[in-house]
Amino acid sequence: MRSSIATVCLAGTLEEKIEACAHAGFDGIEIMDMDVISSRLSPRAIGELVRSFGLTVELFQPIRDVEGVQPSAFAANARRFARKVDLAAELGAPGVLLCSNVGTATEQDDALIADQLHQLGGIAAASGLWVAYEALAWGKYVATYDHAWRLAAAADHSAVGTCLDSFHILSIGDDLSEIDTLPADRLFFCQIADARGLSLDPLTRSRHHRLFPGQGVFDLAGFVRAVQTVGYSGPLSLEVFNDVFRQSDTRTTAVDGLRSLRYLERLTSSTQHQATAAKSVDAVSLTSAHPAMVESLLALTGFTRSALSHEHESVWLQADAQVVVTEASADRELPMVGGMALRVPDVAAAIASAEDQLGPTRTDGPVTEVIAPDRTRIRFVSSSTAGGQPKTPGTLAPIGVVAIDHISLAQPWDRFDEGVLFYRAVAGLRPLVPVDIADPRGLILSQALENDDGSVRLVLTVDPSGLRPENNHVPPTHLGLRVTDIFHAAEAMAERGVGMLRIPDNYYDDLAARFELTDVELERLRRSNVLYDEDSSGGRYWQLYTRAYGDLFLELLQRDGGYSGYGASNAPVRRAAQQSTWTSADTRRR
Amino acid sequence: MRSSIATVCLAGTLEEKIEACAHAGFDGIEIMDMDVISSRLSPRAIGELVRSFGLTVELFQPIRDVEGVQPSAFAANARRFARKVDLAAELGAPGVLLCSNVGTATEQDDALIADQLHQLGGIAAASGLWVAYEALAWGKYVATYDHAWRLAAAADHSAVGTCLDSFHILSIGDDLSEIDTLPADRLFFCQIADARGLSLDPLTRSRHHRLFPGQGVFDLAGFVRAVQTVGYSGPLSLEVFNDVFRQSDTRTTAVDGLRSLRYLERLTSSTQHQATAAKSVDAVSLTSAHPAMVESLLALTGFTRSALSHEHESVWLQADAQVVVTEASADRELPMVGGMALRVPDVAAAIASAEDQLGPTRTDGPVTEVIAPDRTRIRFVSSSTAGGQPKTPGTLAPIGVVAIDHISLAQPWDRFDEGVLFYRAVAGLRPLVPVDIADPRGLILSQALENDDGSVRLVLTVDPSGLRPENNHVPPTHLGLRVTDIFHAAEAMAERGVGMLRIPDNYYDDLAARFELTDVELERLRRSNVLYDEDSSGGRYWQLYTRAYGDLFLELLQRDGGYSGYGASNAPVRRAAQQSTWTSADTRRR
Repeated sequence: MRSSIATVCLAGTLEEKIEACAHAGFDGIEIMDMDVISSRLSPRAIGELVRSFGLTVELFQPIRDVEGVQPSAFAANARRFARKVDLAAELGAPGVLLCSNVGTATEQDDALIADQLHQLGGIAAASGLWVAYEALAWGKYVATYDHAWRLAAAADHSAVGTCLDSFHILSIGDDLSEIDTLPADRLFFCQIADARGLSLDPLTRSRHHRLFPGQGVFDLAGFVRAVQTVGYSGPLSLEVFNDVFRQSDTRTTAVDGLRSLRYLERLTSSTQHQATAAKSVDAVSLTSAHPAMVESLLALTGFTRSALSHEHESVWLQADAQVVVTEASADRELPMVGGMALRVPDVAAAIASAEDQLGPTRTDGPVTEVIAPDRTRIRFVSSSTAGGQPKTPGTLAPIGVVAIDHISLAQPWDRFDEGVLFYRAVAGLRPLVPVDIADPRGLILSQALENDDGSVRLVLTVDPSGLRPENNHVPPTHLGLRVTDIFHAAEAMAERGVGMLRIPDNYYDDLAARFELTDVELERLRRSNVLYDEDSSGGRYWQLYTRAYGDLFLELLQRDGGYSGYGASNAPVRRAAQQSTWTSADTRRR
Repeated sequence: MRSSIATVCLAGTLEEKIEACAHAGFDGIEIMDMDVISSRLSPRAIGELVRSFGLTVELFQPIRDVEGVQPSAFAANARRFARKVDLAAELGAPGVLLCSNVGTATEQDDALIADQLHQLGGIAAASGLWVAYEALAWGKYVATYDHAWRLAAAADHSAVGTCLDSFHILSIGDDLSEIDTLPADRLFFCQIADARGLSLDPLTRSRHHRLFPGQGVFDLAGFVRAVQTVGYSGPLSLEVFNDVFRQSDTRTTAVDGLRSLRYLERLTSSTQHQATAAKSVDAVSLTSAHPAMVESLLALTGFTRSALSHEHESVWLQADAQVVVTEASADRELPMVGGMALRVPDVAAAIASAEDQLGPTRTDGPVTEVIAPDRTRIRFVSSSTAGGQPKTPGTLAPIGVVAIDHISLAQPWDRFDEGVLFYRAVAGLRPLVPVDIADPRGLILSQALENDDGSVRLVLTVDPSGLRPENNHVPPTHLGLRVTDIFHAAEAMAERGVGMLRIPDNYYDDLAARFELTDVELERLRRSNVLYDEDSSGGRYWQLYTRAYGDLFLELLQRDGGYSGYGASNAPVRRAAQQSTWTSADTRRR
């Protein structure tokens, strides 16, 4: 299907938007009335500019609230409509959108509306254009797609058809199954948008919180399959009103939008992409401003230095966990995960797939990396690169780390939704329900993404503005390491004198009220500063935090009985403990 | 009524919150379970710390989802509850809150719930405490205050009463009229919160978008009058979950909260405060980084320089409009309105009233100023200070400016709600419905506040992050000047060669579709770059913008037929024109 995007999805001037859509690789664009009204270019020049960039004007969205009124009022509305049809013709659009009346409709009379649609069809047809009638979820009398379609059919004019917008259908939980009863030759246009799982009224959700496909919770693959079944051959056009996209870099948002259509195409295609889904984490690479401190923390945690380490890069191994440490360039203030290697069945296929999903790649000799929106470099490998590495002698004993359980990745606030889609599309991960974590300085948004068996887990976090560097003593990124026995690990760390995060006594008093734990169990948790959680199906989770060493802290954790979360109920206690006991000096000193 | 605040309203550690509440002047605080769980202090030490600051622990909020379950499950819940009652006693709280079960309730059986509340009352009474049962708006079976109250009465235990939370009652549009049927001796507690006029589900609105009284749309004066009529003598306790407050300066938020209670007290008191409400704008003071350019713009617009001007401050007059220009200190990057003088019937009463409403004041000689959250200095005067001033000769003719119509004030993003309350409480202004304005770089939040006759109008705006200085060529602040004849003013400005904002032709083509204007009228608007609007009752509005001179631009406007808005439908066109035709150099050059 052809790809299209409404210019309202993007920030910038109309000229900037057109350039960004062409640069991303869209086939066409939808133009809104306000784009034209605000532009110094004449409508004809706008159309020519669009075509000079190799794009098509797929639709023009003019005035609203035209139909469903007394004949006398309709005459004035029809005159306004005719002016906008002239404008659409000058733009070179094949048709105009007509949204169901939300404000001024006075007549709940299907025959009258159909007659008025017939007249509007005549006006459009006189200029060689069509009219696509669309039900808005908050339309006064017409709010469902099947109602809009019945009216368009009753209009009985070849220039009158309908437009399906996934947002208006799915935001009110409407049924997709009627779509295949529509005749394809009257389905003139399809608009597509996803949305967060918020219980907002549809109007507010629509105006501010729409998302690109793959960033929210709607069943858009089902929507696309339904319109394909009908035989619709027009473009799939993104129409996403989003407060963040409105203020983001225009080119970046355009690429993000086209990626969402590529991802949707993959979801609805019959080809399988198992070869490209990440199977496990092979290594994580940390770029640290304080590499010596990070290395001592890894050594104390029982990692062995690989003999392949060199001056500018050290490699650390423990069972299946591999951590690479490099020094951050001087201009990077915050510590970050610099990259990760993911094991996939077929490296070449994974890279080709990432490129298809518009993941920007960088090739250096034999190695190709994909760059995530948060700047993490992702490398694909076919089998473990850690097993055969020679180790340097004389290191501390392992503490039972078996694997990297999860990697926490700090996201730029304005690229969070893009990041979710990227890790879905490029690494084949599945997002869980996002959670808010209360830190003493604000709510942190936390979004886990996992592969099918939980062997790859990323946790994307967005810090609130209140966590300005001077208020935030917690490094934004950490590693979760899975151990075989949390209490053994705690004892080993204690014997070595590793600084651990102290958990308040009051937390354990509360645990006693929440769970059926024996006094011995409670005392053991308390003494080891281990946090504990249970899920409703009997799964159990233990977690333990080191203090920050330079710009890294580690979580040691044990999962039991299929526990699949991350101890979210403990997170506020952990954050408060970190904020109140750590200081800038702790986390920044070399 | 005593003033109290839930610690969850504030950012910071528990110690920081306690200090800030005492500093603001609250009588008491509510403590939440998580405050205790996250603290290293023992519950007893927390209570002692609160009292050492002269505060009272008014309530403890422990576990939820206790009642409305099978007797076997209730036994475990009651044990957990008993532990939390012990904790409340150690804190020195007089009682605990019990919210209606939202999750685990299995029994929709009023008799069973009443019996279980009776048992919980017994547990609390054994420690000398009470239980206040509160209906959450999203409670599984108990969701309205009268239902919670009937159950508390049916519990038939002197230690069981109810808690009224304005949020849960007003967010579902419940009727306040039943409140006066409650017996006062069982109304144990009152929590108070306002909220924005959003159609969110109550849960999301509650967790993220509550506001302090006077910052939202709830009828809280009605709520307070109702509980006063009952004879409630406990504290009025703010319980406001707000994403922004959670990341704001703790002390500032505490003062904002106490101001909201002072304001509410004034609304519900019988005393009139007409003497302190602003009657008109006497003068506005601009602190400019480019005073010479600002002064030339004022001169070209027909202002006369007062002979009272001196080297560091010039005063400009035209009819009732008075503008003072001073040079900004070098460290201020953005231009701002530095201050304003408002005419009030009684200056001393206005200052005393502002101090009562916790407006910080600064006195310099005979002049006392109140400092707004956006740092604007507000001075009160009793009559016009402009009329009698001698003017310097040789200036340009007036262009018909009659008064300062409105002052646009840029707000820090995290102090917007505080600003709304401040201008309500201190200047007696009334907020209109806020609007979003689409700029090419993001949505601008715009909130007008006015006095009764519209002679004082402030427009508070918050820029999105996308309007970083490098993206934003529009000074954040401007003045709207009312003229007698917009076309005369336009001609005078044109003759003098003043740079005016050019409006695109497409805008006028759209006007032709929207309004019944003659070709002559349209052509006159187009030629003069005048924007036009009509309201539904026949009011008309004309507006015209100068280019930026240094860090100021002016809007010249004419109102007719009772038009009371600000031309919001024109704002996107105006912003786009400003962003695309102005450059950094335009607005920053000296």
